[in-house]
Amino acid sequence: MSKTIHFIPDNVKITVEDGENLLAAAANAGVYVPAYCGGDGVCGRCKVRIKEGEVASGPSNSLKAAAYADGWRLACKSKVLTDLVVEMPPEKGEDGKIHTRKPKTTRAISARSLDDLIGKWEVDPPVEKRFLKLPPPTIDDNISDLQRLLRGIKKGCFDCVEPTYDHPQLLRMLPFALREANWEVTVILLRGKRSEEPDRIIAVEPGDTTGHLYGLAVDIGTTTVGGLLMDLNSGKVLAESTAYNAQIAYGEDVISRMIYSQRPGGLKILQQKVVFTINEIIEKVCREMIISPSDISYIMAAGNTVMSHLLLGIDPKFLREAPYVPTCSQFPLTRAADLGVLAHPSVRLFLYPSVSSYVGGDIVSGVHACQMYKSPKITLFIDIGTNGEIVVGNEDWMMCSACSAGPAFEGGGIQCGMRASSGAIENFHISPDTYEPMIITIGRTKPRGICGSGLISIVSELLEVGVIDQQGKFNRRLNHPRIRQGVSGYEYVLAWEKDTLVGYDIIITEVDIDNLNRAKGAMYAGYQTLLEAVGLTFADLDRVILAGNFGAYIDLERAICIGLLPDVDRDKFYYLGNASLLGAQISLDDHKRFRERTMVSQLITNIELAENSEFMNHYMAALFLPHTDMSLFPSVKDKLPKGD
Amino acid sequence: MSKTIHFIPDNVKITVEDGENLLAAAANAGVYVPAYCGGDGVCGRCKVRIKEGEVASGPSNSLKAAAYADGWRLACKSKVLTDLVVEMPPEKGEDGKIHTRKPKTTRAISARSLDDLIGKWEVDPPVEKRFLKLPPPTIDDNISDLQRLLRGIKKGCFDCVEPTYDHPQLLRMLPFALREANWEVTVILLRGKRSEEPDRIIAVEPGDTTGHLYGLAVDIGTTTVGGLLMDLNSGKVLAESTAYNAQIAYGEDVISRMIYSQRPGGLKILQQKVVFTINEIIEKVCREMIISPSDISYIMAAGNTVMSHLLLGIDPKFLREAPYVPTCSQFPLTRAADLGVLAHPSVRLFLYPSVSSYVGGDIVSGVHACQMYKSPKITLFIDIGTNGEIVVGNEDWMMCSACSAGPAFEGGGIQCGMRASSGAIENFHISPDTYEPMIITIGRTKPRGICGSGLISIVSELLEVGVIDQQGKFNRRLNHPRIRQGVSGYEYVLAWEKDTLVGYDIIITEVDIDNLNRAKGAMYAGYQTLLEAVGLTFADLDRVILAGNFGAYIDLERAICIGLLPDVDRDKFYYLGNASLLGAQISLDDHKRFRERTMVSQLITNIELAENSEFMNHYMAALFLPHTDMSLFPSVKDKLPKGD
Repeated sequence: MSKTIHFIPDNVKITVEDGENLLAAAANAGVYVPAYCGGDGVCGRCKVRIKEGEVASGPSNSLKAAAYADGWRLACKSKVLTDLVVEMPPEKGEDGKIHTRKPKTTRAISARSLDDLIGKWEVDPPVEKRFLKLPPPTIDDNISDLQRLLRGIKKGCFDCVEPTYDHPQLLRMLPFALREANWEVTVILLRGKRSEEPDRIIAVEPGDTTGHLYGLAVDIGTTTVGGLLMDLNSGKVLAESTAYNAQIAYGEDVISRMIYSQRPGGLKILQQKVVFTINEIIEKVCREMIISPSDISYIMAAGNTVMSHLLLGIDPKFLREAPYVPTCSQFPLTRAADLGVLAHPSVRLFLYPSVSSYVGGDIVSGVHACQMYKSPKITLFIDIGTNGEIVVGNEDWMMCSACSAGPAFEGGGIQCGMRASSGAIENFHISPDTYEPMIITIGRTKPRGICGSGLISIVSELLEVGVIDQQGKFNRRLNHPRIRQGVSGYEYVLAWEKDTLVGYDIIITEVDIDNLNRAKGAMYAGYQTLLEAVGLTFADLDRVILAGNFGAYIDLERAICIGLLPDVDRDKFYYLGNASLLGAQISLDDHKRFRERTMVSQLITNIELAENSEFMNHYMAALFLPHTDMSLFPSVKDKLPKGD
Repeated sequence: MSKTIHFIPDNVKITVEDGENLLAAAANAGVYVPAYCGGDGVCGRCKVRIKEGEVASGPSNSLKAAAYADGWRLACKSKVLTDLVVEMPPEKGEDGKIHTRKPKTTRAISARSLDDLIGKWEVDPPVEKRFLKLPPPTIDDNISDLQRLLRGIKKGCFDCVEPTYDHPQLLRMLPFALREANWEVTVILLRGKRSEEPDRIIAVEPGDTTGHLYGLAVDIGTTTVGGLLMDLNSGKVLAESTAYNAQIAYGEDVISRMIYSQRPGGLKILQQKVVFTINEIIEKVCREMIISPSDISYIMAAGNTVMSHLLLGIDPKFLREAPYVPTCSQFPLTRAADLGVLAHPSVRLFLYPSVSSYVGGDIVSGVHACQMYKSPKITLFIDIGTNGEIVVGNEDWMMCSACSAGPAFEGGGIQCGMRASSGAIENFHISPDTYEPMIITIGRTKPRGICGSGLISIVSELLEVGVIDQQGKFNRRLNHPRIRQGVSGYEYVLAWEKDTLVGYDIIITEVDIDNLNRAKGAMYAGYQTLLEAVGLTFADLDRVILAGNFGAYIDLERAICIGLLPDVDRDKFYYLGNASLLGAQISLDDHKRFRERTMVSQLITNIELAENSEFMNHYMAALFLPHTDMSLFPSVKDKLPKGD
C-alpha cells in the first residue's frame, strides 16, 4: 500500500511505500532536511513536524517532550504509516537569520524496469531428463549397454541423430547404474548446439529423477560473483547467493588482476580464487535447498573477458597490450569439474562469448537478456563502471565500445571514497539557502565515506546551487565554514569529524570532482563516438538501457545533470539491474534463447576507443559539468545558476 | 634368388629361397629325415648326401672326415647355396632291417598372401598439417587469436565448416605460440567423422612442420602388443616394435584377466599395465626415429573387446557373464594422454569398434583391412586362437561368431605345451616306416615343448601314418618304444630326455590330442553354424581368409587333415597375418577408409554360440579326426590308412 506525503512549505508531493523512512522519502522528493549523521538519529538535525497523519517513531534524546507532543519528529527515525502532511522547519543561517526555503529542482527519478520488454521466456532448458524403462539384455539381444541406452533414448524417433557422450566416467559406471536400477534409469541430455546436432549424454541416474532438474546461473564480476540456483522444470529461482570475488585480494580491478597474473604462479592463483568463490556460492545455494552440488546438471556463466580468461586459466597478458587481442572470444565447452568447480564430472560450464578484450560475456549476456537485437528500436545499452561498456544498435546492426572510466564510480581515486557498503554516503542534498548538507548513508549509520552514487549526488547538488562551477572549481567567494582551502585545492566538508565513524572530516575536493569529471566524460564521449560512427545522434535513440548494479541505483536527473547520461526524454530510460546474471538465467531456462547467445556476440561489431582521435576530441569536450556544448543538455541549462 | 632341391629317392622337388636351411626345406617338402634335436646339430641323425650342387656347412663332430668328403652333411646345419640333388639315406628299423622309403603325402602348403586383394590405399590421412602465415593483429583487426587462426584455416573456403578444438591447453598456449613464431604456424587438424563434420584442431606448432607428420598403429593383443610408427606424408612404415602385454603377469588369457579385474584395484592395474606396454612401444619406435612421442599426431589402435575395455578402464565384468553384454561397442574418442599414454595432450587414441563381447575391434580391423564387405565373393574370415573368431559374408551381409576353443592352439592344456618361442617344436614329421620323428624347433635348439603349430603337425602326422586313429586313440597294437602307456592313457615320445633342454621326455598324450580335438571341433562347428544360419555350405565359399599370427604359420594340408580348416580348394585360402595391425595402419593412412571403420562394425551381425543348440550338435560331430562325416573331408579320406 502506497502513501502520499505532502511536504510544506516546499509544496512537494511524493508517493512512497508503506513503512518508508521519512528522511529517505524527503531526499528522494528533493526536499532538503538538514542531516549530518547519515540517518543514524544522533545529530538531531532532521526535525520535521507531522501536521497530518501518523508516523512510527519513539521519543528521542534529541527531542523535548513538549516538541514531541507538538508533532515534531526526527525524520530519520520515522516510518510512514499513513498519508502525511509534513512541515519543514525554517532554517537559520550562520548569522542566526531565518532563511525562506527555496524549493529544490532535483528529484530522484529511477529508470523504468525493462521487465515487460524482456517478456516471458519458455521453460524448455538446454538440459533435459528422460526416464527410460529398458528391456534387460537376453542372449538374443545382447547389444552393448551403451547401444541399449541409445536405443532407449531414440525409441520412436527414427530420424533422430544419435546422442553422443564423451566422459569416460559415464561408460565406467554405466553397466552398474543400469543393473542396480533394474534397467530403469533417468538420462540427462544436453541438447546440441543446433537442432540438427546430436544431444550429449551428461549422466545416467538410477530410477526416475525427472522431477529434479537443477541449473546454476553465475555472474562472475570483478568484484562480486552472483549465483542463482534454478529449478529447470519450473523455471523458478530456488536460491540466490553472492560473494566477493576472492581474487580481490590480488587487485581491485581487471588491470591489477592482469598485472598480478604475470607474476610467477599468479595466473594459477587467480584461477583457483575465482573457482573458490564459485564453489562458495554452489555450496551455499545447495545447502539451502538440501541438494548435492552433483545434482546440478548445467552451469551457465557470464563474465567480462578478463574474468573469463582467468577462470579458464588462459593468460590475459595480450588483453592488456595494444592492439588488445583476446586469446579467444568464444570459450570452449568446458567440464566444470576440470576447472575445479564442485560439479558432477560430466557437467558443462558454459561461458558467454565475448566481443573483444574489454566488451565481455557479461555485456553479451545483458544484450542477450534485453533482446535489443530483436527490436527495431534503436537502443543504447550502458554498463557504467571502471570499465564502461556501451552497445548501440537494433535488430539490423549493433556496435560496441569499452571506455576506461577509471574507478571513480566505485569510490576509487576519491579522497574519502569507498565501495557502496555500510556508512557510505549514498544520497546527498544541500540547502540552497544555508549550504548545509543532508546526507544519507547506506545502513543509516554515521558516515564513513562516499560511494559512487553519493559522489554523483554531491557533485550535481554542489553544481546546481553554485557551490562549484561547471569546471568543478569551488566558488571561492562563498564564505562558508564548510568550504575551505585544503591540501589539494578547495574542498567542501560533508561531515565534521564528530559526526562520522572515522577520525577525520569527510570532504569532497576539487581533485575528486576532477576524477568524476574524467570518468563521466569518458562514458559520454563513448556514446558520442559510437553514435557518430553509425551517423546517429542522441535524438535518434528510442531507448537507453542501464545495466549493472550501479545503473540500478542511479538518480537519472543527477546523472544527466553532471553529464554522465545523455539529456534525452526520461521515459526512454530503462534499467536491467544485473543483466549478466539475467542473461545466464534465461539461457538456463530456454534452450532456444541459449542457442542464440553465440550469434548475439557475433552480431556486435567492436570499435576500439583507445587510440581513436574522435573519441579523444569528444572526451576533451566532455570535461565540463555537464559539457562544454550546453546545447546537448537543454534541461540542465535551465537548472544551473545563471552565469555570474 | 630361389633354388630347386630334388630329394631322392622320394623324388620330391621343392623351390626354396637362397640360403634356406636344408632340414626345414625337407620338412616343408614332406620329405622325412630323422631329427631328434630340433635342428640343433647335436643328435647327428639328419645326415643326407649332397649328390649335386653345394651347401654351406662346416665339418661336424657327428660326421667322419671320410663321410664329409663323400658329400654327407647334417641337413640341419646346411644352407642351400645352389640347386641341389639330395639323397636321403635308407632307414634301419629297431630290428636293424633296412626299410624302403615310402614317400609322404603331406607337404606344407601356405595360404596365399592377400596383399594383391587389399590393393593400394591412398595416403591421405585423417590428420593433416597446414602451414599458415597469419597477418599480425592491428588495432583495426584485433579479433581474438583463435578467430585469427580459424580465419587462416578457412581462408579461401567460404562454405567450410569452422574447425573445432576442445583441449583448454590449446588455448592456453595459443597466444604465445603465435607470437613466438611471428604468426607463422603449422596447425594439425583431425578431420571430422564425416565430410560435413568440422575438423578438429589438435595442435599448433611454430614454423612450418608440415614435413613431419607421424601416426602410430597399435594392435593390442592379449599376449603381444604390436606397434607401427608411420610417416603419414609418405604412408611408409618408419619403425616397428612388439612387446609382451604386461598384463600377462595377471593371467594368460582374457578370461583370467577378467577374473583379475574383479579383485580390488585389479582393473586399475590391468589398465596401467597395457598402457605401460603401449608406452614401451612408443618409446622404442620414437627412439629409433629420433623423434619425441609428442610428435605423434594420431594413434589408431585395435584390440579385442576385453583389451579395449581394460585400456579405457571400463570394467569387463559383464562381458563374462551371460548374456555377454559389453559396456560399449563403439569406443569413445579418447585423448591418449588421459589414459596415461605418452602423447601430446590433444592427440586422440582411436579404438576400432567391437561387434560383441567376443568379436572385438581386432576382428573388425581385419575385416576392414581385407575389404570383404566390398566384394561380391563369399568370404570366410577366421582368426584361430583361444577365442576363435569367425566372420562370413560379402558386400551384402556379414555374420560373425566367436567360439571358445580353449588354449590348445597356444600350447595351453597340453602336457608338454608351450608358447611359440625358442625350443618349441613347430614342425614334425614321422617316418611312415620306422615311426621315428623328425622334429624342428623354433630357434633350432633342442626341444623344450610343443607349440600350437607343432601340435597340429604332430597330430596330423600321427593320424596319417595310423599311429593314432580318428578318435585320437593310439594304436595299441603297434609295438614301438616311443609308444607307451603313460599316466593318463597312451602317449608318444617325441624326444627322449637326453635330446631335450628339459629334464624329461617330451611326449604327446591322448589327453593332449583330445584337447586339440575339442579346440578344432569348436572352430569347425563355428564355421558350420554360421554358414547354416545363412543357408550356405562350404561349397559356396569363394575365399577363406586366415587372420592372426597363428594363421600365418599354419600348414594348410595338416590343418585340413585334422579338421581345423574346411576341406575346400587350397587356392581359396589366403592369409592376412596381423590383420588387426594392418587395419589400423590403413586407417592411419587413408581417411576415407578410416571413416568406414564404424560402418564395418555395424554391418556385422553377431550370433552367440554359447547357448546355441545347432552349434552343440555340430561340435559333437566334429570331435573326430577330421570329422565324423568324412564326406566333408574328401581329400583327407584318401590319405588316411584304410580301416583296419
